[in-house]
Order: sequence, then structure tokens, then C-alpha cells
Amino acid sequence: MTGRTTSQKAVKTPAKTQATGGIKMGVLPELMGYMLRQCQLLVYQDFHHAVGDEHIRPPQFSLLEIVNANPGIRPSDVSTSLGISRANLVPLLSELEGRGWMVRKGDKHDGRAQALHLTRAGVAQLARLHELVIPHEQRLAARLGPVGRDILLKLLHALVTETADKA
Amino acid sequence: MTGRTTSQKAVKTPAKTQATGGIKMGVLPELMGYMLRQCQLLVYQDFHHAVGDEHIRPPQFSLLEIVNANPGIRPSDVSTSLGISRANLVPLLSELEGRGWMVRKGDKHDGRAQALHLTRAGVAQLARLHELVIPHEQRLAARLGPVGRDILLKLLHALVTETADKA
Repeated sequence: MTGRTTSQKAVKTPAKTQATGGIKMGVLPELMGYMLRQCQLLVYQDFHHAVGDEHIRPPQFSLLEIVNANPGIRPSDVSTSLGISRANLVPLLSELEGRGWMVRKGDKHDGRAQALHLTRAGVAQLARLHELVIPHEQRLAARLGPVGRDILLKLLHALVTETADKA
Repeated sequence: MTGRTTSQKAVKTPAKTQATGGIKMGVLPELMGYMLRQCQLLVYQDFHHAVGDEHIRPPQFSLLEIVNANPGIRPSDVSTSLGISRANLVPLLSELEGRGWMVRKGDKHDGRAQALHLTRAGVAQLARLHELVIPHEQRLAARLGPVGRDILLKLLHALVTETADKA
């Protein structure tokens, strides 16, 4: 009944992307938006299986990662960097603080601003998460062939890079 | 002030995917889950710009598409096919019905079951949406080079296809 055990088996597909069981999908499988959404749901589901025992969801992991990489980062910069609205960020920060993984200190340059830091427990938690996330990523990458993951990441980066639009 | 006008310009990037403004992103840009999420947010944002005047979001579009492709489809099959939970599907169906684009009829084989059909107005609305979605897709595809979109879709299909996992 543990998520860890389930994750050793095949990853469930959250939805159909091609005609199966007699259901026709119309133009949906040809649309990047639909396919990106289906893939994101699948990967998040597998993430949940991989790290479920830690009770961490992807936004919390991203938050630990960015605070670890940028000690003293301000909440507003976290919002901008991760694309999380301030309204959604506040409860996430409180939760990580409540779990003893993060602290908010006054910024030494600006008394009103907050500076975020991981605690020693937070750093240890993040290291543990990295150990769980790596096999999760590898398991999914195995579906794409030897160079498939690299090509996928390159294309996804091209899609979100604004400058590419000007070409 | 219209979404249509905005959509003619560059698509906004919802979040950073690489170090910018001095913020380091850690391992996030190397994770498929993080990148898929950022791309999905970007594509949904562009979808909103493209069809914003129609007040249609991607799940409503998918619903119109699948009912059009499968006249008489049952709500349970829509749930399974699109990966939308029944709880989330019910208000979506009511909304499309309220806008005069869809009707629920009794299934001729099973009196208790519902059969979904688009109205003539629903079919016309979907045709109008296709005209808006095609340039939205092309605008994003332009970021990926001539064959980039095809390769991306192929990789995304491989990622969600369960059988590929057995290789």
C-alpha cells in the first residue's frame, strides 16, 4: 500500500492521448498544450509515487531547491523565479517553516524585507529528496530512449525562452 | 485591452527556467517535471490570449472536441479519456449546456446513462475555436524550428504511452 512500492511498477497514464476503447480524441493529441498537460500530470503523479512518503509536492521541492541555491533570497524573487503567485507562496513558505526546514530572517540591507534560508534539517531533507527524484527522472527518461530526455529538455527550454520567439 | 491584440506580440514567459537576474535555479531546469509544468503554463497562457474573447479554457475546449468526435459519449468515458475527475467534469458539462453548446440525452441502451451531444451552436463554436487554436499552435511551434514541434509531440506521446515503459 505504499507509494514507494507502486512506483517500482509501471507509471499510470492519467488520460488517453490517442483513440482507445473506441473513443476518438479529435485534434487533441496533435496539440502541444494538451500533450504537455497530460505529460505534466503523469510526471507529477510519478513524483508523488517517488517521494510520497516525504509528503512533498513539486512546488515545495522547487521552493527548497531555489532557497538552497540562493541563501537569503526574498519571497518576491521566489515568486518571480518559480512563477508562483505571492498568494500561493505565502502558505507554502509557512508550511516549510512549520516543518523546520526554512527560516525567514530580516534582510540585512532592508529591514522590512525577508530573507529566506534553509535550516540544517531543510538541507538534509533536500538531499534526501534529490536521492528520490533522480530515479524518478531516470525511470521516465527510459521511456524516451537514450537521447530522448536531452532532446525533450532542449525543446522545452526553447519553448519557454522568449528570445527564440524573435527568430 | 483585448487578449487578441496581446497575442500578436511575444508570449510572456511565466517563470524563469535558467539563472537570470542573479537567481540560481539549482537542478530544476534539468527536471522534466519542472520544465513540463513551465511549458504547460506558458502554452495555456498563450491559449488564453488566442481564444480569450470566447471565454473558453483548455478543459472546455477538450470537452467540446471529444463530444464532437464521439456523439453520444457518456460522461464517465469523458472523465477517463481526458483525465478529468467526475467532480470537476460536472460543472464543466453544466456550463457548456448553459451556454447552449451541449445537451445531455438519455442513452438509448441504458435509461439511467446520459449521452452527450453538441448542439448546432456547439459545433459552430468548436469550428470557430479551431480557427483560433491553429495560429496559437503555429506561433508556439515557430519557437522550435521546422521539425521541433513534431519531435516534441513524438516525445510527449512516448512519455505518456505505458507500453513504452516495458522496453
